[in-house]
Amino acid sequence: MKAQKIDEQHTTNGVNVTELFNTIDSVKNSPVIAKFKFRADNQWIEGGYNETTIKDFYGIQKEHRHEATFKLGADEPPLLLGTGKAPNPVEYLLTALAACVTTSLVYHAAAKGIKLNSVESQLEGDIDLQGFLGLSEEIRNGFQEIRMNFKIDADVSPEQLDELVRLGPTYSPVFDSITKGVPVKVQLEK
Amino acid sequence: MKAQKIDEQHTTNGVNVTELFNTIDSVKNSPVIAKFKFRADNQWIEGGYNETTIKDFYGIQKEHRHEATFKLGADEPPLLLGTGKAPNPVEYLLTALAACVTTSLVYHAAAKGIKLNSVESQLEGDIDLQGFLGLSEEIRNGFQEIRMNFKIDADVSPEQLDELVRLGPTYSPVFDSITKGVPVKVQLEK
Repeated sequence: MKAQKIDEQHTTNGVNVTELFNTIDSVKNSPVIAKFKFRADNQWIEGGYNETTIKDFYGIQKEHRHEATFKLGADEPPLLLGTGKAPNPVEYLLTALAACVTTSLVYHAAAKGIKLNSVESQLEGDIDLQGFLGLSEEIRNGFQEIRMNFKIDADVSPEQLDELVRLGPTYSPVFDSITKGVPVKVQLEK
Repeated sequence: MKAQKIDEQHTTNGVNVTELFNTIDSVKNSPVIAKFKFRADNQWIEGGYNETTIKDFYGIQKEHRHEATFKLGADEPPLLLGTGKAPNPVEYLLTALAACVTTSLVYHAAAKGIKLNSVESQLEGDIDLQGFLGLSEEIRNGFQEIRMNFKIDADVSPEQLDELVRLGPTYSPVFDSITKGVPVKVQLEK
Protein backbone atom coordinates (compact mmCIF):
# COMPACT_ATOMS: atom_id res chain seq x y z
CA MET A 1 0.00 0.00 0.00
CA LYS A 2 2.78 2.42 0.90
CA ALA A 3 4.73 1.73 -2.31
CA GLN A 4 1.60 2.31 -4.35
CA LYS A 5 0.97 5.62 -2.62
CA ILE A 6 4.49 6.85 -3.34
CA ASP A 7 4.09 5.79 -6.97
CA GLU A 8 0.77 7.66 -7.28
CA GLN A 9 2.38 10.72 -5.80
CA HIS A 10 5.15 10.82 -8.37
CA THR A 11 3.54 9.49 -11.53
CA THR A 12 0.44 10.73 -13.39
CA ASN A 13 -0.61 9.29 -16.76
CA GLY A 14 2.61 7.22 -16.73
CA VAL A 15 4.67 10.45 -16.64
CA ASN A 16 7.12 10.84 -13.75
CA VAL A 17 5.92 14.25 -12.60
CA THR A 18 8.64 14.62 -9.97
CA GLU A 19 11.23 14.18 -12.75
CA LEU A 20 9.29 16.58 -14.99
CA PHE A 21 9.36 19.33 -12.33
CA ASN A 22 13.05 18.58 -11.65
CA THR A 23 13.72 19.01 -15.38
CA ILE A 24 11.86 22.33 -15.42
CA ASP A 25 13.92 23.55 -12.44
CA SER A 26 17.18 22.41 -14.08
CA VAL A 27 16.32 24.24 -17.31
CA LYS A 28 15.41 27.41 -15.37
CA ASN A 29 18.85 27.30 -13.70
CA SER A 30 20.75 26.45 -16.89
CA PRO A 31 18.74 27.14 -20.08
CA VAL A 32 21.53 25.80 -22.33
CA ILE A 33 20.62 22.20 -21.37
CA ALA A 34 17.26 22.65 -23.17
CA LYS A 35 18.98 22.89 -26.58
CA PHE A 36 18.40 19.60 -28.41
CA LYS A 37 19.35 18.32 -31.87
CA PHE A 38 17.33 15.47 -33.35
CA ARG A 39 18.55 13.48 -36.36
CA ALA A 40 17.49 11.08 -39.11
CA ASP A 41 19.52 9.34 -41.84
CA ASN A 42 17.73 8.29 -45.01
CA GLN A 43 18.76 5.85 -47.71
CA TRP A 44 16.91 5.45 -50.99
CA ILE A 45 16.35 1.77 -51.85
CA GLU A 46 14.23 1.58 -55.06
CA GLY A 47 11.36 3.53 -56.63
CA GLY A 48 9.14 4.99 -53.91
CA TYR A 49 10.78 2.92 -51.16
CA ASN A 50 13.40 4.37 -48.79
CA GLU A 51 14.53 3.77 -45.22
CA THR A 52 15.19 6.18 -42.37
CA THR A 53 17.45 5.30 -39.45
CA ILE A 54 17.09 7.00 -36.06
CA LYS A 55 19.96 6.34 -33.69
CA ASP A 56 21.23 9.38 -31.77
CA PHE A 57 20.45 12.89 -30.58
CA TYR A 58 22.06 15.76 -28.68
CA GLY A 59 20.71 17.32 -25.50
CA ILE A 60 21.75 18.44 -21.97
CA GLN A 61 25.07 19.45 -23.56
CA LYS A 62 26.01 15.94 -24.68
CA GLU A 63 25.49 13.22 -27.28
CA HIS A 64 23.04 10.36 -26.60
CA ARG A 65 22.49 7.06 -28.37
CA HIS A 66 18.98 5.58 -28.43
CA GLU A 67 18.86 2.21 -26.64
CA ALA A 68 17.79 0.68 -29.97
CA THR A 69 18.39 1.81 -33.57
CA PHE A 70 15.03 2.43 -35.28
CA LYS A 71 14.49 1.70 -38.99
CA LEU A 72 11.45 3.28 -40.64
CA GLY A 73 10.56 2.27 -44.20
CA ALA A 74 8.49 4.61 -46.38
CA ASP A 75 6.73 3.60 -49.59
CA GLU A 76 3.93 4.73 -51.85
CA PRO A 77 0.80 2.61 -52.45
CA PRO A 78 0.57 0.94 -55.91
CA LEU A 79 -1.90 3.68 -56.97
CA LEU A 80 0.98 6.16 -56.53
CA LEU A 81 3.46 3.86 -58.30
CA GLY A 82 4.99 2.28 -55.20
CA THR A 83 4.79 -1.24 -53.81
CA GLY A 84 2.69 -0.47 -50.71
CA LYS A 85 5.22 -2.00 -48.27
CA ALA A 86 5.07 0.87 -45.75
CA PRO A 87 3.26 4.13 -44.94
CA ASN A 88 4.03 7.01 -47.30
CA PRO A 89 5.86 10.22 -46.32
CA VAL A 90 2.73 12.36 -45.82
CA GLU A 91 1.27 9.63 -43.59
CA TYR A 92 4.50 9.87 -41.54
CA LEU A 93 3.84 13.62 -41.22
CA LEU A 94 0.35 12.92 -39.81
CA THR A 95 1.89 10.31 -37.48
CA ALA A 96 4.40 12.88 -36.18
CA LEU A 97 1.60 15.39 -35.58
CA ALA A 98 -0.75 12.91 -33.88
CA ALA A 99 2.00 11.50 -31.65
CA CYS A 100 3.36 14.91 -30.63
CA VAL A 101 0.04 16.60 -29.85
CA THR A 102 -0.95 13.51 -27.82
CA THR A 103 2.32 13.38 -25.84
CA SER A 104 2.22 17.14 -25.20
CA LEU A 105 -1.35 16.85 -23.93
CA VAL A 106 -0.46 13.86 -21.71
CA TYR A 107 2.68 15.48 -20.20
CA HIS A 108 1.03 18.85 -19.52
CA ALA A 109 -2.09 17.20 -18.11
CA ALA A 110 0.21 15.22 -15.78
CA ALA A 111 1.95 18.45 -14.70
CA LYS A 112 -1.50 19.86 -13.81
CA GLY A 113 -2.42 16.70 -11.92
CA ILE A 114 -5.19 15.73 -14.39
CA LYS A 115 -5.60 11.96 -14.73
CA LEU A 116 -6.47 10.74 -18.23
CA ASN A 117 -8.32 7.51 -18.89
CA SER A 118 -8.00 7.50 -22.69
CA VAL A 119 -6.94 9.77 -25.52
CA GLU A 120 -7.69 8.96 -29.15
CA SER A 121 -7.40 11.07 -32.27
CA GLN A 122 -8.27 10.76 -35.93
CA LEU A 123 -6.38 12.87 -38.43
CA GLU A 124 -7.16 13.67 -42.04
CA GLY A 125 -5.29 15.97 -44.41
CA ASP A 126 -6.07 17.17 -47.96
CA ILE A 127 -3.49 17.13 -50.74
CA ASP A 128 -4.06 17.99 -54.40
CA LEU A 129 -1.44 16.07 -56.39
CA GLN A 130 -1.51 18.63 -59.19
CA GLY A 131 1.10 20.41 -57.06
CA PHE A 132 3.45 17.44 -56.76
CA LEU A 133 3.03 16.62 -60.46
CA GLY A 134 4.00 20.18 -61.43
CA LEU A 135 0.67 20.76 -63.20
CA SER A 136 -0.40 23.91 -61.39
CA GLU A 137 1.42 26.98 -60.06
CA GLU A 138 -1.54 27.95 -57.86
CA ILE A 139 -2.04 24.60 -56.09
CA ARG A 140 0.46 23.99 -53.32
CA ASN A 141 2.44 20.72 -53.17
CA GLY A 142 1.74 20.12 -49.51
CA PHE A 143 -1.25 19.64 -47.25
CA GLN A 144 -3.95 22.30 -47.74
CA GLU A 145 -5.52 21.58 -44.35
CA ILE A 146 -5.22 18.97 -41.61
CA ARG A 147 -8.07 18.12 -39.23
CA MET A 148 -7.52 16.42 -35.85
CA ASN A 149 -10.52 15.00 -34.03
CA PHE A 150 -9.93 14.07 -30.37
CA LYS A 151 -11.85 11.76 -28.07
CA ILE A 152 -10.72 12.15 -24.47
CA ASP A 153 -11.91 10.39 -21.35
CA ALA A 154 -10.79 12.07 -18.13
CA ASP A 155 -12.37 12.74 -14.75
CA VAL A 156 -12.93 16.43 -15.41
CA SER A 157 -15.86 18.74 -16.21
CA PRO A 158 -16.83 19.47 -19.85
CA GLU A 159 -15.27 22.96 -19.48
CA GLN A 160 -12.01 21.44 -18.23
CA LEU A 161 -12.10 19.01 -21.16
CA ASP A 162 -12.09 21.98 -23.57
CA GLU A 163 -9.02 23.36 -21.77
CA LEU A 164 -7.40 19.92 -21.77
CA VAL A 165 -7.64 19.44 -25.53
CA ARG A 166 -5.91 22.83 -26.03
CA LEU A 167 -2.82 21.70 -24.07
CA GLY A 168 -1.59 19.55 -27.01
CA PRO A 169 -1.59 22.27 -29.70
CA THR A 170 -0.33 24.86 -27.19
CA TYR A 171 2.87 22.98 -26.34
CA SER A 172 3.52 20.46 -29.14
CA PRO A 173 6.80 20.97 -31.07
CA VAL A 174 5.40 19.23 -34.19
CA PHE A 175 2.14 21.24 -34.10
CA ASP A 176 4.20 24.44 -33.89
CA SER A 177 6.55 23.26 -36.68
CA ILE A 178 3.73 22.29 -39.05
CA THR A 179 1.40 25.24 -38.43
CA LYS A 180 4.05 27.98 -38.38
CA GLY A 181 6.64 26.53 -40.77
CA VAL A 182 10.34 25.79 -40.30
CA PRO A 183 13.29 26.94 -42.43
CA VAL A 184 14.86 23.86 -44.09
CA LYS A 185 18.35 24.14 -45.60
CA VAL A 186 19.20 21.58 -48.28
CA GLN A 187 22.83 20.97 -49.17
CA LEU A 188 24.58 18.68 -51.61
CA GLU A 189 27.76 17.04 -50.36
CA LYS A 190 30.42 16.88 -53.06
CA MET B 1 16.71 -9.87 -73.70
CA LYS B 2 13.58 -8.42 -75.25
CA ALA B 3 11.70 -8.39 -71.92
CA GLN B 4 14.63 -6.61 -70.31
CA LYS B 5 14.66 -3.97 -73.04
CA ILE B 6 10.91 -3.28 -72.61
CA ASP B 7 11.45 -3.03 -68.86
CA GLU B 8 14.29 -0.54 -69.25
CA GLN B 9 12.14 1.54 -71.57
CA HIS B 10 9.33 1.87 -69.03
CA THR B 11 11.06 1.97 -65.66
CA THR B 12 13.71 4.38 -64.37
CA ASN B 13 14.94 4.31 -60.76
CA GLY B 14 12.29 1.65 -60.06
CA VAL B 15 9.55 4.12 -61.05
CA ASN B 16 7.18 3.07 -63.83
CA VAL B 17 7.61 6.16 -65.98
CA THR B 18 4.94 5.09 -68.50
CA GLU B 19 2.43 4.94 -65.63
CA LEU B 20 3.73 8.27 -64.28
CA PHE B 21 3.10 9.99 -67.64
CA ASN B 22 -0.30 8.26 -67.93
CA THR B 23 -1.18 9.62 -64.47
CA ILE B 24 -0.12 13.14 -65.49
CA ASP B 25 -2.32 12.90 -68.64
CA SER B 26 -5.29 11.60 -66.62
CA VAL B 27 -4.98 14.45 -64.10
CA LYS B 28 -4.75 17.02 -66.94
CA ASN B 29 -8.01 15.62 -68.34
CA SER B 30 -9.78 15.34 -65.00
CA PRO B 31 -8.08 17.42 -62.23
CA VAL B 32 -10.58 16.21 -59.59
CA ILE B 33 -8.85 12.80 -59.47
CA ALA B 34 -5.75 14.51 -58.00
CA LYS B 35 -7.58 15.37 -54.76
CA PHE B 36 -6.35 12.99 -52.05
CA LYS B 37 -7.11 12.62 -48.33
CA PHE B 38 -4.53 10.89 -46.14
CA ARG B 39 -5.34 9.68 -42.63
CA ALA B 40 -3.87 8.52 -39.33
CA ASP B 41 -5.55 7.25 -36.15
CA ASN B 42 -3.69 7.63 -32.87
CA GLN B 43 -4.21 5.96 -29.52
CA TRP B 44 -2.43 6.97 -26.33
CA ILE B 45 -1.10 3.95 -24.43
CA GLU B 46 0.90 5.23 -21.40
CA GLY B 47 3.19 8.16 -20.58
CA GLY B 48 5.11 9.21 -23.69
CA TYR B 49 4.08 6.09 -25.64
CA ASN B 50 1.29 6.12 -28.24
CA GLU B 51 0.47 4.22 -31.43
CA THR B 52 -0.62 5.47 -34.84
CA THR B 53 -2.52 3.25 -37.27
CA ILE B 54 -2.43 3.91 -41.03
CA LYS B 55 -5.00 1.91 -42.98
CA ASP B 56 -6.84 3.86 -45.69
CA PHE B 57 -6.87 6.95 -47.90
CA TYR B 58 -9.03 8.67 -50.52
CA GLY B 59 -7.96 9.47 -54.08
CA ILE B 60 -9.11 9.22 -57.72
CA GLN B 61 -12.62 9.85 -56.36
CA LYS B 62 -12.78 6.73 -54.23
CA GLU B 63 -11.72 5.11 -50.96
CA HIS B 64 -8.68 2.82 -50.85
CA ARG B 65 -7.44 0.42 -48.19
CA HIS B 66 -3.71 -0.13 -47.83
CA GLU B 67 -2.74 -3.75 -48.51
CA ALA B 68 -1.46 -3.92 -44.93
CA THR B 69 -2.44 -1.94 -41.81
CA PHE B 70 0.61 -0.11 -40.48
CA LYS B 71 1.20 0.47 -36.75
CA LEU B 72 3.73 3.12 -35.76
CA GLY B 73 4.70 3.45 -32.11
CA ALA B 74 6.10 6.74 -30.79
CA ASP B 75 7.91 7.18 -27.50
CA GLU B 76 10.31 9.54 -25.77
CA PRO B 77 13.81 8.47 -24.67
CA PRO B 78 14.29 8.03 -20.89
CA LEU B 79 16.06 11.42 -20.79
CA LEU B 80 12.70 12.94 -21.83
CA LEU B 81 10.74 10.78 -19.36
CA GLY B 82 9.73 8.03 -21.82
CA THR B 83 10.79 4.39 -22.08
CA GLY B 84 12.75 4.65 -25.34
CA LYS B 85 10.72 1.94 -27.12
CA ALA B 86 10.28 3.87 -30.38
CA PRO B 87 11.34 7.07 -32.20
CA ASN B 88 9.87 10.26 -30.77
CA PRO B 89 7.38 12.53 -32.61
CA VAL B 90 9.93 15.08 -33.83
CA GLU B 91 12.07 12.22 -35.20
CA TYR B 92 8.95 11.09 -37.12
CA LEU B 93 8.74 14.61 -38.57
CA LEU B 94 12.35 14.34 -39.80
CA THR B 95 11.53 10.88 -41.21
CA ALA B 96 8.54 12.30 -43.13
CA LEU B 97 10.71 15.08 -44.54
CA ALA B 98 13.64 12.80 -45.51
CA ALA B 99 11.37 10.21 -47.12
CA CYS B 100 9.30 12.76 -49.07
CA VAL B 101 12.17 14.85 -50.43
CA THR B 102 13.91 11.61 -51.48
CA THR B 103 10.83 10.14 -53.21
CA SER B 104 10.09 13.45 -54.95
CA LEU B 105 13.67 13.64 -56.20
CA VAL B 106 13.57 10.00 -57.40
CA TYR B 107 10.20 10.32 -59.22
CA HIS B 108 11.06 13.63 -60.92
CA ALA B 109 14.53 12.38 -61.89
CA ALA B 110 12.82 9.32 -63.43
CA ALA B 111 10.43 11.60 -65.37
CA LYS B 112 13.48 13.44 -66.75
CA GLY B 113 15.18 10.13 -67.65
CA ILE B 114 17.99 10.63 -65.09
CA LYS B 115 19.25 7.34 -63.65
CA LEU B 116 20.26 7.44 -60.00
CA ASN B 117 22.77 5.06 -58.47
CA SER B 118 22.32 6.10 -54.85
CA VAL B 119 20.67 8.83 -52.78
CA GLU B 120 21.46 9.33 -49.10
CA SER B 121 20.58 12.15 -46.75
CA GLN B 122 21.38 13.17 -43.19
CA LEU B 123 18.97 15.44 -41.36
CA GLU B 124 19.43 17.44 -38.19
CA GLY B 125 16.99 19.84 -36.53
CA ASP B 126 17.32 22.19 -33.55
CA ILE B 127 14.74 22.40 -30.79
CA ASP B 128 14.96 24.42 -27.60
CA LEU B 129 12.78 22.63 -25.03
CA GLN B 130 12.16 25.86 -23.11
CA GLY B 131 9.28 26.27 -25.59
CA PHE B 132 7.69 22.89 -24.89
CA LEU B 133 8.17 23.33 -21.14
CA GLY B 134 6.37 26.68 -21.25
CA LEU B 135 9.41 28.52 -19.85
CA SER B 136 9.79 31.15 -22.56
CA GLU B 137 7.36 33.16 -24.66
CA GLU B 138 10.08 34.08 -27.18
CA ILE B 139 11.41 30.60 -27.87
CA ARG B 140 9.20 28.62 -30.25
CA ASN B 141 8.05 25.09 -29.33
CA GLY B 142 8.99 23.59 -32.68
CA PHE B 143 12.11 23.18 -34.79
CA GLN B 144 14.10 26.39 -35.19
CA GLU B 145 15.91 25.08 -38.27
CA ILE B 146 16.32 21.77 -40.10
CA ARG B 147 19.37 20.92 -42.22
CA MET B 148 19.35 18.21 -44.92
CA ASN B 149 22.65 17.05 -46.35
CA PHE B 150 22.41 14.94 -49.52
CA LYS B 151 24.92 12.54 -51.11
CA ILE B 152 23.85 11.57 -54.63
CA ASP B 153 25.52 9.27 -57.09
CA ALA B 154 24.15 9.62 -60.64
CA ASP B 155 25.64 9.59 -64.10
CA VAL B 156 25.33 13.36 -64.61
CA SER B 157 27.64 16.39 -64.63
CA PRO B 158 28.29 18.38 -61.41
CA GLU B 159 25.97 21.14 -62.77
CA GLN B 160 23.18 18.62 -63.39
CA LEU B 161 23.73 17.26 -59.87
CA ASP B 162 22.97 20.73 -58.47
CA GLU B 163 19.72 20.77 -60.48
CA LEU B 164 18.92 17.22 -59.40
CA VAL B 165 19.14 17.95 -55.66
CA ARG B 166 16.68 20.83 -56.16
CA LEU B 167 13.97 18.51 -57.56
CA GLY B 168 13.19 17.11 -54.09
CA PRO B 169 12.46 20.43 -52.32
CA THR B 170 10.72 21.78 -55.45
CA TYR B 171 8.06 19.05 -55.58
CA SER B 172 7.92 17.41 -52.13
CA PRO B 173 4.54 17.70 -50.32
CA VAL B 174 6.19 17.36 -46.89
CA PHE B 175 8.90 19.94 -47.69
CA ASP B 176 6.18 22.36 -48.77
CA SER B 177 4.06 21.57 -45.67
CA ILE B 178 6.95 22.04 -43.23
CA THR B 179 8.57 25.11 -44.78
CA LYS B 180 5.36 27.03 -45.55
CA GLY B 181 3.08 25.79 -42.75
CA VAL B 182 -0.33 24.11 -42.84
CA PRO B 183 -3.54 25.14 -41.04
CA VAL B 184 -4.41 22.43 -38.49
CA LYS B 185 -7.93 22.35 -37.01
CA VAL B 186 -8.27 20.59 -33.66
CA GLN B 187 -11.71 19.46 -32.52
CA LEU B 188 -12.97 17.67 -29.43
CA GLU B 189 -15.65 15.04 -30.03
CA LYS B 190 -18.29 15.09 -27.32
